[in-house]
Amino acid sequence: MTERFHRIALIGIGLIGSSIALAVRRAGLAEHIAVQSRRRETVDAAQRLGLGDSYTTDPAQAVKDADLVIACVPVGAFAAVAQAIAPDLAPGAIVTDVGSVKQSVISQMQPHLPDNVHFVPSHPVAGTEQSGPEAGFAELFDNRWCILTPPAGTDPKAIERTQAFWEALGMHVDIMDAAHHDLVLAITSHIPHLIAYNIVGTASDVGDVTRKEVMKYAAGGFRDFTRIAASDPTMWRDVFLHNKDAVLEMLGRFSEDLTALQRAIRWDDGETLFNLFTRTRDIRRGIIEAGQETDEPDFGRHHGDGDHDLPRPYSSD
Amino acid sequence: MTERFHRIALIGIGLIGSSIALAVRRAGLAEHIAVQSRRRETVDAAQRLGLGDSYTTDPAQAVKDADLVIACVPVGAFAAVAQAIAPDLAPGAIVTDVGSVKQSVISQMQPHLPDNVHFVPSHPVAGTEQSGPEAGFAELFDNRWCILTPPAGTDPKAIERTQAFWEALGMHVDIMDAAHHDLVLAITSHIPHLIAYNIVGTASDVGDVTRKEVMKYAAGGFRDFTRIAASDPTMWRDVFLHNKDAVLEMLGRFSEDLTALQRAIRWDDGETLFNLFTRTRDIRRGIIEAGQETDEPDFGRHHGDGDHDLPRPYSSD
Repeated sequence: MTERFHRIALIGIGLIGSSIALAVRRAGLAEHIAVQSRRRETVDAAQRLGLGDSYTTDPAQAVKDADLVIACVPVGAFAAVAQAIAPDLAPGAIVTDVGSVKQSVISQMQPHLPDNVHFVPSHPVAGTEQSGPEAGFAELFDNRWCILTPPAGTDPKAIERTQAFWEALGMHVDIMDAAHHDLVLAITSHIPHLIAYNIVGTASDVGDVTRKEVMKYAAGGFRDFTRIAASDPTMWRDVFLHNKDAVLEMLGRFSEDLTALQRAIRWDDGETLFNLFTRTRDIRRGIIEAGQETDEPDFGRHHGDGDHDLPRPYSSD
Repeated sequence: MTERFHRIALIGIGLIGSSIALAVRRAGLAEHIAVQSRRRETVDAAQRLGLGDSYTTDPAQAVKDADLVIACVPVGAFAAVAQAIAPDLAPGAIVTDVGSVKQSVISQMQPHLPDNVHFVPSHPVAGTEQSGPEAGFAELFDNRWCILTPPAGTDPKAIERTQAFWEALGMHVDIMDAAHHDLVLAITSHIPHLIAYNIVGTASDVGDVTRKEVMKYAAGGFRDFTRIAASDPTMWRDVFLHNKDAVLEMLGRFSEDLTALQRAIRWDDGETLFNLFTRTRDIRRGIIEAGQETDEPDFGRHHGDGDHDLPRPYSSD
């Protein structure tokens, strides 16, 4: 059993930072939670929500005396964060992050961090399409996976303590190489987001189908894509720019497969379509069995309780 | 107010057929529901579930004396259904369907139907990823849209009565040209399904990422796609083969847009990415405002109640 942290500093307090604050509180993991955001309005919102014990726009001030520092910022901002906090980090502190691209975060942060702190890069694979400190909730991490990608030579004790931290927040923890992480997440997260953004963009631009039609008939499948296409634009811009190689590689494979499907449709090759459509069912079953998805139809969306009360011309008696 | 139907015949009793049966019962719309399926096991399952008042594997028998016949079969099966029922249709009966591709259904059915029945093609835009008579529920249609595509010259009274039927099941009704329907659904439903099937196929075939990894880290976005990629393979094979032109047209636009995004990533064009990702948020908002989607984060999926009870090494007091 790991001891509590004296002071946890959250650099950035969006969806992930605020959810960590709430989950840390729930688990009683810290004596003090220091909350930082670059923007005053965000700090004020976090304070109104009571997410921490102290609040500042200054990253250096937030990390003073912290034994755990968690950077919860878009992937493009880690170099700036590392530079800002480096001089004030306490010796022996663990520095971690929640970035979705590990090689980039490591190459941005490591050069700036002093030798007397422990840098243990983390990626809690959890989120929703919402952003900002109001969007956070303590249960976000329950039963989800967190991937650690510690560079060679990282202190094993620091890795252990970081692992225990995420586990205490409700997560399962895996440890892997940063390059492999970036490849895995390219296909499980980055390409799905790119495709969702793309189809929603395409649909909103089809001249001969109106936007109103797209919205009315979205229940045919389209609306599922709009959820992840509503995710934070800054975060996702940074992910694609910072995981460029893996994203382009996986996008190439996706496009090849799509071309093959296109050809099957053009050539009336129903067997190829049927075989793929049968195979893909198994994957969902596997995800449900892995505890990473609900097995309720339609994600357990509510049916029959829409805003509109329609007249019912027939009575049932 | 429209009178009840004397006898409604359901040709095919999968997800949609069984949901219609339950919704018809809920609204008290029929004196008698005749249930038909080609397969004996399916008829038996429907009977065990008490979906109808009579059960048969013979479509001709089911439609005898019916004043409303609803064909609820995959898009590739409508010609066979029309041929099978035509000789036994009652004069004045309304024949409708639930097919996702209207031009094809019309060209398959119309040549076989006698002149003394009213053919009013319908497409209730509703569904889940589940299949079979056990998957049906009465609320499936509540607050969703149904599109009618009556050929020129269809009796206005028959259109009206069909519209009133779907409205009594909880739906809003639009009337449009079959070709336009097929174009609209290509982008709001068919292409989203094709892309979902494709990404799930790609992910299951990536040599350097294991299937186990894909399943574990699916919460990063991928799992949303697996829902619609778990839809009925026969139904969807038929949709793509029977709406080939519109699907290939919309797929072309999707691929062009994706190529532009790919180029933006390769050239570090963050502005193009950011602008698209901002624009797509509005579409989701529109769908929620149109009452076609829940506004709960993550589709209102439950958080924190997974199968696994993780040990919590910290206590909160």
